[in-house]
Amino acid sequence: MLDCIIVGSGLAGISAALTLQSNRKEFLLFGSPSLSEKIEKAEKIHNYPGLSDVSGKEFCAALKAQLDEAKIEIKNEKVAGVYALKEKFSILTQEGNTYESRTIILACGVESIRLIDGETEFLGRGVSYCATCDGFLYKGKTIAVVCTTKRLEHEIGYLADFAEKVYLIPMYKDVEIDRDNVTIIKKMPQKIQGKLRVESLAFAAPPSEDIPKDLSVNGVFMLRESVAPSVLVGGLETKDGHVVVQRDMSTNLPGCFAAGDCTGRPYQYTKAAGEGNIAAHSVSEYLK
Amino acid sequence: MLDCIIVGSGLAGISAALTLQSNRKEFLLFGSPSLSEKIEKAEKIHNYPGLSDVSGKEFCAALKAQLDEAKIEIKNEKVAGVYALKEKFSILTQEGNTYESRTIILACGVESIRLIDGETEFLGRGVSYCATCDGFLYKGKTIAVVCTTKRLEHEIGYLADFAEKVYLIPMYKDVEIDRDNVTIIKKMPQKIQGKLRVESLAFAAPPSEDIPKDLSVNGVFMLRESVAPSVLVGGLETKDGHVVVQRDMSTNLPGCFAAGDCTGRPYQYTKAAGEGNIAAHSVSEYLK
Repeated sequence: MLDCIIVGSGLAGISAALTLQSNRKEFLLFGSPSLSEKIEKAEKIHNYPGLSDVSGKEFCAALKAQLDEAKIEIKNEKVAGVYALKEKFSILTQEGNTYESRTIILACGVESIRLIDGETEFLGRGVSYCATCDGFLYKGKTIAVVCTTKRLEHEIGYLADFAEKVYLIPMYKDVEIDRDNVTIIKKMPQKIQGKLRVESLAFAAPPSEDIPKDLSVNGVFMLRESVAPSVLVGGLETKDGHVVVQRDMSTNLPGCFAAGDCTGRPYQYTKAAGEGNIAAHSVSEYLK
Repeated sequence: MLDCIIVGSGLAGISAALTLQSNRKEFLLFGSPSLSEKIEKAEKIHNYPGLSDVSGKEFCAALKAQLDEAKIEIKNEKVAGVYALKEKFSILTQEGNTYESRTIILACGVESIRLIDGETEFLGRGVSYCATCDGFLYKGKTIAVVCTTKRLEHEIGYLADFAEKVYLIPMYKDVEIDRDNVTIIKKMPQKIQGKLRVESLAFAAPPSEDIPKDLSVNGVFMLRESVAPSVLVGGLETKDGHVVVQRDMSTNLPGCFAAGDCTGRPYQYTKAAGEGNIAAHSVSEYLK
């Protein structure tokens, strides 16, 4: 069994990984080969000690080189769920693999986009975060897909293979997908509605002439770079969307630690790196 | 009045300064022009995200360049005391200057050398941390000086100008001071003894043929790179030698924040940088 699984390859996750590697722990770092969209897209970083006025791209390149040197690989799978079992965690990925670990460090960031009304309420009852997990359920049906990043555009194609009709609400520019059964809506929905299950998506006003204010759909997929920690880990204590942590980065679940933006403001690289470092030390202490 | 005074130029202090500068706050950063002996002497740093296998000297050089670019100067005075007044702090330096600030960030590190028995008990009654403040009190007397770093050797000379006899207990190599009235003892004392005031310094065994187990002295100077936070700031809550802080780096004194090694383990650069960042943000929030 692994000593630790780190969820997220932003600064908190990278920092935790570097320290766990120094401490000779067996771990996996789940994330994206390009590390973090947030870092990559930063124009200039002014207040990260040791790097003067570095661009996001330069910072990313330095971090990648450092991970390579430290022989740390990034496991490019999306974590779909974390289950706290007796003295261990079971991690399920959207790729369908299961991993077991004695501890976990959540470094999954925060989504700056607010949840849509009804999203949490209908989770598992028509709302899904995972195209590859739940796509087949919507064969021949009508779905809406809210997608926050171009990186996940391939998942829309996957959904369009099953669904008869896809309404895509992209939160990014340069939409490239071109499928007959995909209609693009450039307005944000306000609310997911239904009784037992999702029945429709409500907009403030009709998004276009052809599309009504209340759009009938069988399901809503929310494709985001990261899933809210409270959704990812059952029983995890959160407050105002942030994981509640102690000074040692421990959460309410023994063996589960959190670091970086997901623990709250300030949303800063230096803070995230510091917390990743502390979390890694706490994991080492915990494993004793 | 200043917005903030940062005490200490290690990673926590530097990180706080960079962020306060971005936030356009008026502040002073008290520390050493060489920043931090701890950083400078580090052989290799492996787990600081963004800098691969950097040496302490390289890291120090990068930090100095960054401070220069950000137009942040280091105030090269030693803080002797911090006094919490109504809605402000008064800071007294060993150079005899006073500064006022609405907030303070303690980033003064930890001394790895344990306190000597009786040190706290006799503070102000024969035990002193400040040669220039109290040296004149020992004109013609016999004193012991425990000095932890070569950087403070010049203060021994200052004390030797006043005292008739100085017993120097150096905690560093390459002692260069050569004065007729200075005798070097290469053993650590165990205890400071006395009734109302300091009367003697006790060793486990006679340090040499000429020097008895109980060495009569009128005073003991403890010359350290940094003073314990609890000694520096009256009324500050500490536990096991560390400042007690909340997640936002606030202490029990309103407007007084702490960051870095002085808040506890892990004693790591990344952790210190992260905490300095958080403390600076908390200062900005507090000043609103």
